[in-house]
Amino acid sequence: MAENPGMPVRPSGRLLRAPEHFLSPAQIAEVTAGRRGFLRGAFAAALAGTGGVAAAQGTGDANILELPAHTKGLGQPVATHGYGQPSQYERNLQRRESPGLTRVSAASVSFAPLQGMFGIITPNGLHFERHHQGWWDIDPSKHRLMINGLVKNPLVFTMDDLMRLPSVSRMHFIECGANTGMEWGNVAVPTVQYTHGMLSCCEFTGVALSTLLDMAGYDKKAGKYILVEGADGSSMTRTVAMERALDDCMVAYAMNGEMLRPENGYPLRMVAPGIQGVSWVKWLRRIEVGDMPYGTKDETLHYVDLMPDGLHRQYTSIQECKSVITSPSGGQTLLDKGFHNITGLAWSGRGKIRRVDVSTDGGRNWRTAKLESPILSKCLTRFNFGWVWDGGPAILQSRAIDDTGYVQPKINQLRAVRGTRSIYHNNAIQSWRVAEGGEVSNVQVY
Amino acid sequence: MAENPGMPVRPSGRLLRAPEHFLSPAQIAEVTAGRRGFLRGAFAAALAGTGGVAAAQGTGDANILELPAHTKGLGQPVATHGYGQPSQYERNLQRRESPGLTRVSAASVSFAPLQGMFGIITPNGLHFERHHQGWWDIDPSKHRLMINGLVKNPLVFTMDDLMRLPSVSRMHFIECGANTGMEWGNVAVPTVQYTHGMLSCCEFTGVALSTLLDMAGYDKKAGKYILVEGADGSSMTRTVAMERALDDCMVAYAMNGEMLRPENGYPLRMVAPGIQGVSWVKWLRRIEVGDMPYGTKDETLHYVDLMPDGLHRQYTSIQECKSVITSPSGGQTLLDKGFHNITGLAWSGRGKIRRVDVSTDGGRNWRTAKLESPILSKCLTRFNFGWVWDGGPAILQSRAIDDTGYVQPKINQLRAVRGTRSIYHNNAIQSWRVAEGGEVSNVQVY
Repeated sequence: MAENPGMPVRPSGRLLRAPEHFLSPAQIAEVTAGRRGFLRGAFAAALAGTGGVAAAQGTGDANILELPAHTKGLGQPVATHGYGQPSQYERNLQRRESPGLTRVSAASVSFAPLQGMFGIITPNGLHFERHHQGWWDIDPSKHRLMINGLVKNPLVFTMDDLMRLPSVSRMHFIECGANTGMEWGNVAVPTVQYTHGMLSCCEFTGVALSTLLDMAGYDKKAGKYILVEGADGSSMTRTVAMERALDDCMVAYAMNGEMLRPENGYPLRMVAPGIQGVSWVKWLRRIEVGDMPYGTKDETLHYVDLMPDGLHRQYTSIQECKSVITSPSGGQTLLDKGFHNITGLAWSGRGKIRRVDVSTDGGRNWRTAKLESPILSKCLTRFNFGWVWDGGPAILQSRAIDDTGYVQPKINQLRAVRGTRSIYHNNAIQSWRVAEGGEVSNVQVY
Repeated sequence: MAENPGMPVRPSGRLLRAPEHFLSPAQIAEVTAGRRGFLRGAFAAALAGTGGVAAAQGTGDANILELPAHTKGLGQPVATHGYGQPSQYERNLQRRESPGLTRVSAASVSFAPLQGMFGIITPNGLHFERHHQGWWDIDPSKHRLMINGLVKNPLVFTMDDLMRLPSVSRMHFIECGANTGMEWGNVAVPTVQYTHGMLSCCEFTGVALSTLLDMAGYDKKAGKYILVEGADGSSMTRTVAMERALDDCMVAYAMNGEMLRPENGYPLRMVAPGIQGVSWVKWLRRIEVGDMPYGTKDETLHYVDLMPDGLHRQYTSIQECKSVITSPSGGQTLLDKGFHNITGLAWSGRGKIRRVDVSTDGGRNWRTAKLESPILSKCLTRFNFGWVWDGGPAILQSRAIDDTGYVQPKINQLRAVRGTRSIYHNNAIQSWRVAEGGEVSNVQVY
């Protein structure tokens, strides 16, 4: 995706360029004194003194009345955009395809730009994508959901039917089972967008799957599994255990306050908290109750773990406890010593995050990071950690612990069990190397 | 904002049209039998039987192989939009200006379409707007924040400076003090978008104001207030008590995972949890520490409460406990008897929501609604309530109680104290009348 070179934009990601210095105490005194006489002029002078707005507007001289246009004029009206858009200065921050990762872009991935994101909510415009046969904008008035199989009353729902049923809203992360897959080998993908960007987190609204299964009268004895099926050409089908389906799965029509986006399954998708993304079937059209796992293409040939002995592990769908530092991260540069906020995300498919530790020396010493609220089950948790960089080399790592007591493993611990030829379910500790010049890069630390 | 009549779109708001009926048991049996023979064909037949996809694609006949295009073809590639957009079927759902409310649209309001929103997160594209002199897209590299007044070390920050400081993320509602203002009199604004749409809720990320005030060395004895000042032409300035500033206020650069939107103060705004929106100064450029309230234009002439005795109450900035049913709500129509999910929002500027009660008979009987998680302080809480409509007239109300024990008042309780000529701080119970035909309208119940 080409960027327009004629337009100044923020770099993709957090600004870690050398900060301009604060005003000197003398400058501040001058500004404060001046303000008493003539507030607006003095403020302009202060800004000019820092190479700020007034000077930047191209006046060139020290005319203290030369305030920026936005301080003098009438701005844009409300509802200029009935549906708002990001600042023109933020348009570098996009989800991006990794060129060559798959043969066609309709069956590919676009990664979320975690390096420039904040908190835990993924804005819908930056939610990662993984399509198996491209995305469609399906007419919701024509879409149907069928519940059949081992049920007393098979049902077909319209969207209107679904949207008048009892509704639930909950926040959950979704992570592709292949996220961080390149790191199984020794391929150090350059940025966190490409190492961990198949990860998003939204507030989903829909109908509890248990409500629909109850309405259909599922077979409580024989009905041990469900098959979840999408309406797109890939005929995506996945097995989910009935126990999990009844626990916290939902059929969702909305994310982050509005209807799903087409790329995320509009008008209906499966939400399977804690389970890998492929089971969150998009453009959801059918749920069948069965008495055994279905063993479909996407759970026998794909999304299976190639083990060192040459066999495959199947049905390993729960996303284990994991974390990553999103800033500073690969491709960014620290241009100044001193205090930096290290920030990142932690999550577990089994529950809540209990603690995140951060190391700045490659795992020799660890200190506990601050967790932001809310801390929710099967949801991203944002952590922050204060660090004073002395200008020397450093290796930044984060390590998450969930409320089952599970500790996120090192890559060599994971490889000892799982080998190096897998694609899926890599939840190892990620290491970012800070070079003496401040450049941050992906490095594997054993 | 004109709508394109050539294009089918979902109505603005929840679909409450008559749901199509479920398949008959006979049809289902037929479908299920057919599926065993030929899955895809049978599903198409099932859909045709409900007036579904196959029939709707214009085939007209019962050709069971006539699957919808999205089931047969290759869809759009990933990253078609580096920054994604809503479905074409959702473009009715927009924030909208109330024509004639103010003299110019640059000093006006656009309301959030609460009737078609879900959960508690407001998507950034639908966040309400209130500008006093229009909005601007300010170049962040030229923007500065000054901290001055009763401080030891006055400071000027660039955005880079701010973004390397200790960071906090929290979810909070923002409500304009004038929200629901028309209801003080007997003006029953037709829809919840216009009665309550100056309300949004986001996850904000920024720097705690206490961090900045500490860095500047504020005067702990004399410094009892701060003045918060914006960079736009309206010179918006508001006083905030130091106690609140140190408690949970922040200087935010991000909302819902990405940088602020221009209409919401990009690149920097004040976040003053629980306090009315006007104090969340946008395009924030300066914070001054002082020893008394500043008494600026927007706190002496505006955002004051005209009382029955002709005097004004000032500095009543905390948004008291309030709730509203967002669906069904004014302008929507129930086209079918039976089960409906009543849903809405509750919030309090003083803490968490403890309980929400719902009445369907104009306040004679109340039952407790289900609250969705998370329930956070000074944040929206989503409630849901199951209701079986018998087809007769009904009056729907919600009543919130916060964790201080405060109960949301009726409009006549509020008027007894505050009169009818105020504009601001109306937190009364809202009533929606359901007529026998299913039409929902705004009605005042005393």
